[in-house]
Amino acid sequence: MNERLSQLYSLLETEALDAAFVTLPKLIYYFTGFYTEPHERFMALVCPRNEPPFLLVPLLDYEKAVQSSSVSRIVPLEDTDNPYEVLKRHMKGAIKRIGIQEDHLNVKRYHGLMEATGAEEAVHIDQQLAQLRVVKSDAEVAAIRRAIRCIEEVLHQALPLVKPGVTELDLVAEMEHRMKKLGADGPSFDTMVLSGAKTGLPHGVPGMEPIQEGELLLFDAGVFIDGYASDLTRTFAVGDVGDKCREIYDAVLQANMQMIQAVHPGASFASLDLAARSCIERKGYGEYFITRAGHGFGLEIHEYPSIHANNADLMREGMVFTAEPGIYIPGLGGVRIEDNVLVTKEGVQVLTSFPKELTVVEV
Amino acid sequence: MNERLSQLYSLLETEALDAAFVTLPKLIYYFTGFYTEPHERFMALVCPRNEPPFLLVPLLDYEKAVQSSSVSRIVPLEDTDNPYEVLKRHMKGAIKRIGIQEDHLNVKRYHGLMEATGAEEAVHIDQQLAQLRVVKSDAEVAAIRRAIRCIEEVLHQALPLVKPGVTELDLVAEMEHRMKKLGADGPSFDTMVLSGAKTGLPHGVPGMEPIQEGELLLFDAGVFIDGYASDLTRTFAVGDVGDKCREIYDAVLQANMQMIQAVHPGASFASLDLAARSCIERKGYGEYFITRAGHGFGLEIHEYPSIHANNADLMREGMVFTAEPGIYIPGLGGVRIEDNVLVTKEGVQVLTSFPKELTVVEV
Repeated sequence: MNERLSQLYSLLETEALDAAFVTLPKLIYYFTGFYTEPHERFMALVCPRNEPPFLLVPLLDYEKAVQSSSVSRIVPLEDTDNPYEVLKRHMKGAIKRIGIQEDHLNVKRYHGLMEATGAEEAVHIDQQLAQLRVVKSDAEVAAIRRAIRCIEEVLHQALPLVKPGVTELDLVAEMEHRMKKLGADGPSFDTMVLSGAKTGLPHGVPGMEPIQEGELLLFDAGVFIDGYASDLTRTFAVGDVGDKCREIYDAVLQANMQMIQAVHPGASFASLDLAARSCIERKGYGEYFITRAGHGFGLEIHEYPSIHANNADLMREGMVFTAEPGIYIPGLGGVRIEDNVLVTKEGVQVLTSFPKELTVVEV
Repeated sequence: MNERLSQLYSLLETEALDAAFVTLPKLIYYFTGFYTEPHERFMALVCPRNEPPFLLVPLLDYEKAVQSSSVSRIVPLEDTDNPYEVLKRHMKGAIKRIGIQEDHLNVKRYHGLMEATGAEEAVHIDQQLAQLRVVKSDAEVAAIRRAIRCIEEVLHQALPLVKPGVTELDLVAEMEHRMKKLGADGPSFDTMVLSGAKTGLPHGVPGMEPIQEGELLLFDAGVFIDGYASDLTRTFAVGDVGDKCREIYDAVLQANMQMIQAVHPGASFASLDLAARSCIERKGYGEYFITRAGHGFGLEIHEYPSIHANNADLMREGMVFTAEPGIYIPGLGGVRIEDNVLVTKEGVQVLTSFPKELTVVEV
């Protein structure tokens, strides 16, 4: 049994669980090395307390599981099977308490697992599972670095493509094309290229509008490489964007740097948010910083921690997260500058290296 | 209130619900016209029985919701808010029975909704919601047709790119590039290009292997356009693939056509699966047809119905689904031919038009 699975089995002891069910595909990958996206089909890594773990996988992923999983006992599920009946046949002994991922497991499967196991109680082990993987190993940080190098290269290649008549969606297509060419598994989220007033929407959707001279241009993009994510945002000026936009940019850049300076083991995530937010508030834009200051990532693009004013948890060496303060002014536009950082013994290492000073793109 | 929301409110009456909670983003889009992917943030369309509906959305999507939602009452949630406390403040009157999407709602949110509303009982309205949208309107079919035209054009453009040294991932990148250029929102699932023995994996992952002469080459791809999906699979021969592969191809093609011939209102989905499966069984490949025969799609790439031997539900005019029999032989390779069909009054209309006879691609 690998070290990660051993930690999971230790969790069974500390939480007095008779079995644990891991259902998030990326977490199954973390524990077994087998990854698939089963869509609406049932899949679980089952860890009964006194037995070796086994995988329940859709039949059509069975071969892939056999080839890649470190867990050797694999039970295929046909589309006509009731997964809970199959599970029941493979569970032995009395089950009273089970561990589940309440953030992932849907209500239907929850009821199915409770009935199949005969459990009286379901314990939520989401936070313990998040804690298991919040500190990244050297190999994990190396994969994240590869994912960052890739998206930075993609962004370097994309900027010269900003020309009259080019649309947001053209740039998205060119970037995602280059991600794959550069060896990425794919984008780690929907690539975002926004221009003009749309930069004022933290979750805007790229469209067919041509990029205009005199507007802000925001790229928020990342890739998965070997299962691990990157998440980079840079905002550019297309020609002369005017004093107001430059003022916003400076405020966000300072907030970004203040936040990164505040990263060190033992400090709270709330203190990071405060470092960024107080900087933007001093400039008079506090009401326009409408997002959290950052989030953990790794196998998923959003992992623990969520970095906001109410998260008093403390940073630990080996944690990786985004630092992404922003100002979003409806109708005018917005600026976000997002880096990826690693908490180190000494304080912080900024993993992203793309330049941050305001760059003017000439069209 | 639009017709779709009226149907939802009728459901409150028929199921005697005090409130319904729609939480799947695409379904919120279906009812309100507002779409976002909130990732781990809470979002819900709340329909209290005797009050107008309202939306709970992350603050960073508030502007987009205001611009696009037909539901005008929109409550923003800050990252520091407890969404269930906000919800509690907006609910009036006694709540005993609530309707939820058990296939989508996770256990944590389920407990949160139960506590916030004080409900004693949660009723699963997944099937009723699926039934509401299983029959597609003309506008929806038109959007699906656009999504199909797009992926067919992408596939036509991709075939000439199959040349010595080109890899599966090269083709994926070229195809996804063209999707965006042709106006798609994006791929409707991870674009699959598989060659050689990997075609024998129904859920194989494209890699850096160059396409080889004498091997099968499988494309499974689709796009979203205006929120609606397409889902097309074609398998090609790269040069001479040998008698065995041609035999498999013929068996799958016949199964595909038999299945489509069996589509008509009033017949069961099981009969469709049987039509395809018996054809492949007669050819001696029954054990290698390891997937269901098809699935509904629309706003989501996988919707009700699932087409397999145990689904005795009946086809109705206006339903849209895939017909995708396949043969998957580990180590050798596989063939899948997937069309998208519409159930019509007269029987069936095949929406996909890409040629199905075995096409040899010369490299």
